[in-house]
Amino acid sequence: MDVATGSLGQGLPIAVGVALAGKRLDGLPYHVWALCGDSEVAEGSIWEGIDKAGYYGLSNLTAIVDVNRLGQRGETEYGWDLEVYRRRFEAFGARAVVVDGHDLEQVDAALAEARSATERPTVILARTIKGKGFSEVEDRDGWHGKPLPPDMAERAIAELGGVRHLTVETRRPESGTAARPAAPARPAAAVEVPTYRRGDEVATRKAYGDALSALGARPDVVAMDGEVSNSTYADEFARAHPERFFEMFIAEQMLVSAAVGMSVRGYVPFASSFAAFFTRAYDFIRMAAISRANIRLAGSHAGVEIGQDGPSQMALEDLAAMRAVQGSTVLYPCDANSAARLTVAMADLEGIVFLRTTRGGYPVIYEPGEEFAVGGSKVVRASDGDRVALIGAGVTLHGCLAAAEELAAAGIPARVIDLYSVKPVDVDTLRAASAVTGGRLVVAEDHYPEGGIGAAVMEALAGEPRPPRVAHCAVRGLPGSGRPDELMEAAGISPRHIAAAARSLLDEEVRR
Amino acid sequence: MDVATGSLGQGLPIAVGVALAGKRLDGLPYHVWALCGDSEVAEGSIWEGIDKAGYYGLSNLTAIVDVNRLGQRGETEYGWDLEVYRRRFEAFGARAVVVDGHDLEQVDAALAEARSATERPTVILARTIKGKGFSEVEDRDGWHGKPLPPDMAERAIAELGGVRHLTVETRRPESGTAARPAAPARPAAAVEVPTYRRGDEVATRKAYGDALSALGARPDVVAMDGEVSNSTYADEFARAHPERFFEMFIAEQMLVSAAVGMSVRGYVPFASSFAAFFTRAYDFIRMAAISRANIRLAGSHAGVEIGQDGPSQMALEDLAAMRAVQGSTVLYPCDANSAARLTVAMADLEGIVFLRTTRGGYPVIYEPGEEFAVGGSKVVRASDGDRVALIGAGVTLHGCLAAAEELAAAGIPARVIDLYSVKPVDVDTLRAASAVTGGRLVVAEDHYPEGGIGAAVMEALAGEPRPPRVAHCAVRGLPGSGRPDELMEAAGISPRHIAAAARSLLDEEVRR
Repeated sequence: MDVATGSLGQGLPIAVGVALAGKRLDGLPYHVWALCGDSEVAEGSIWEGIDKAGYYGLSNLTAIVDVNRLGQRGETEYGWDLEVYRRRFEAFGARAVVVDGHDLEQVDAALAEARSATERPTVILARTIKGKGFSEVEDRDGWHGKPLPPDMAERAIAELGGVRHLTVETRRPESGTAARPAAPARPAAAVEVPTYRRGDEVATRKAYGDALSALGARPDVVAMDGEVSNSTYADEFARAHPERFFEMFIAEQMLVSAAVGMSVRGYVPFASSFAAFFTRAYDFIRMAAISRANIRLAGSHAGVEIGQDGPSQMALEDLAAMRAVQGSTVLYPCDANSAARLTVAMADLEGIVFLRTTRGGYPVIYEPGEEFAVGGSKVVRASDGDRVALIGAGVTLHGCLAAAEELAAAGIPARVIDLYSVKPVDVDTLRAASAVTGGRLVVAEDHYPEGGIGAAVMEALAGEPRPPRVAHCAVRGLPGSGRPDELMEAAGISPRHIAAAARSLLDEEVRR
Repeated sequence: MDVATGSLGQGLPIAVGVALAGKRLDGLPYHVWALCGDSEVAEGSIWEGIDKAGYYGLSNLTAIVDVNRLGQRGETEYGWDLEVYRRRFEAFGARAVVVDGHDLEQVDAALAEARSATERPTVILARTIKGKGFSEVEDRDGWHGKPLPPDMAERAIAELGGVRHLTVETRRPESGTAARPAAPARPAAAVEVPTYRRGDEVATRKAYGDALSALGARPDVVAMDGEVSNSTYADEFARAHPERFFEMFIAEQMLVSAAVGMSVRGYVPFASSFAAFFTRAYDFIRMAAISRANIRLAGSHAGVEIGQDGPSQMALEDLAAMRAVQGSTVLYPCDANSAARLTVAMADLEGIVFLRTTRGGYPVIYEPGEEFAVGGSKVVRASDGDRVALIGAGVTLHGCLAAAEELAAAGIPARVIDLYSVKPVDVDTLRAASAVTGGRLVVAEDHYPEGGIGAAVMEALAGEPRPPRVAHCAVRGLPGSGRPDELMEAAGISPRHIAAAARSLLDEEVRR
């Protein structure tokens, strides 16, 4: 299975995801082998990985740790103290086998033992000597990741026995067992998108859970969560399809790795947690993009809107981080009907797809049948005489609507755009809004000012012959704990602030 | 010590940083106590933390794990299996003590034992019952993080023995021992900023190492690295001031936590790794901002410029992520003199400060005496007749200079701005450039297009009466492996592309 693992500590947890698919979903007799360096065993993600391998009894997984003692800049933390590694891996639920990594009989015996039935993963701890066989570099520091100069290379080849041509015959997997994707045997039932009545107050995270559960009619859809499924509403899927739900507990790096592992086996994974906690796995998400993995991440409880739980639980930099991931899609619906539709659409998207959902319940504003294209937007309120456009997504869209009412009462017609597709963004609709309003745009977002929805709008239109003016309502200070409406007011993203920002664009023009 | 730990698995590693300061720097007899939940023990960062506590023999650290069995949505991974926890913590180098967390004598004995001398940290594993003492919720699921309704609260108080007023006398620390900041006893020597000769080719990461080493004259400056100090050049500090250098091995979450822990003890920490690998600790950086910690992060090997090592090692989303951190400062110098000056300036900045450095050597363009204000920029080339401004930072500044030469040869005078302070950004200089050039700006960056230097420029000027047009050269596809110049050419950020972007701004105007 091809995955990118150049950032250390990622190979093993991703292999755990592949092995979990093999054991619980594929039902195929393949074995997953993960090669690890000794330096990378210092990464916490290695322990998240082997812990879950032990918890799920993944006897179809073997990690081989190459303990050569030398890291990039000197000796590793534990050098050749194989017993430290053995104790740790055993304590985390693995069968550990220590071998001399240069003794082929020991290696062969260990690999055979790894395939013998247990209810545990196996970790082969191979004591090796870096550069073995070439006396000029063998076990010496300072040769990490460096090619040998040509003359040394010549001497190395000579000392290793000269140029040889070895062909190793391997047993090919039986036809189909390693096929990708793993075609689920059961036929897919139709996915019925859940719908909501206009005006009802429903949290978008609830719509996510409803839609994910409905998506479970597709046998290739799997879900995992980081011990918050009763908050993200992934628990609806867990109840409906327990055999395809994987509890990863509070280990977000492993959560994303499991999704990557299942993605490379051809499944359609949805991983959920609080949006803030996906920052814990940012390196894994970045690397998943390099792997060309197709994973769907649903981050709930975004922004100051969450209220009382305070800033540690508030995602306020997630849109910037997720937009910057290569080839990503970033969605942020404002109501339950759009959230449900977009959740279902996510199943067929490629790359890293991030859905941001809101904690509180807000009125459903769309009719059940409405469609939501990825890369699109909705002009929720418009007239030919619009003097300003209010652009929001998620919770601030409701603020934009209230601000438009306030402006209308003062004789100022305002367009309102629901920018639910933050990336890719609907350039045409933004361009049209800029043209109609004389380039007066207000962007309101429950996010820090850098790199979020404001930047998405600016980046989309900065190359225009006449770029718009953008008044930007965003969270600028460090928020505290309070009621959602109090915090949005304090942050400067309430309807009052959005209307004031619109007025400022109009007022300044009068003064000029 | 006040630190924010609402994101799970962060309290212990930060406490390790505080204890490391206590043992290795303060030389004070304080003991550090970290309270952990059982759910958070699933986070890999807990194991990075206790591993380093064991490695550094932090007998002045005690973690107390409240094993109440119930997480937010049901039973934790290991419930009340205290032996699993004991084996793991012991294997990771701690002394583990299992107690009944409701038996005050056992708790008292364990706390006393924790203070007895060993060369290891202590972990007290306290078996507890969630909600103990109130029969309606005791050991029951579904009460995580929920206040009791008023009537239940009344009954709980009654069952717990009624309203009581308890005053516990604690022994105050001896005067000064808990003082913050820990005033280092040695007087500071003057910091001599290293300088470089104009035209010499020097990597900015090398200038970072030189300047950091010089900063070591200040006894409050400490440094730590994630086993890549021979690449980040933090090894220069390690050689000059070994007693204030801390090797964190390949564990970036612990790397940042150590910096946070030392920051709250009043030290001035500089943590370094490849810029790409700080994504591994993004949640820790976000939380450090909430802690109001003052930490300095130096990320080397940014962008496609690193060449052969491939995309896993290329930071291409770091500027977006770091800019979005509340109150952060983001610096990206293009030459060795500015890099050295800015490194020294970082020591006196508050909050999260990120310095991005480049792998390759590029010509020194500034004189040794030149000053670089944080929040400033340098107009490197300018005339009153400039028709376009080329804005770069780091490696692309050199591309902007080459492009300006090319444009000059074609009769197009171009201004060049070194935007070394990406956040805060120099709005005045950008505004002036926009005014002089008729709003024609080219931004070139070795970063994905979202949220980086382009967004910084756009966000700065989007509210202007007439915002500029921005032509944006950034890395849009997934890069591969190759020579730096090949990859910059393939990504569309070479001098040729920058000049073409400038021409496109001028040509389109002609066509209109």
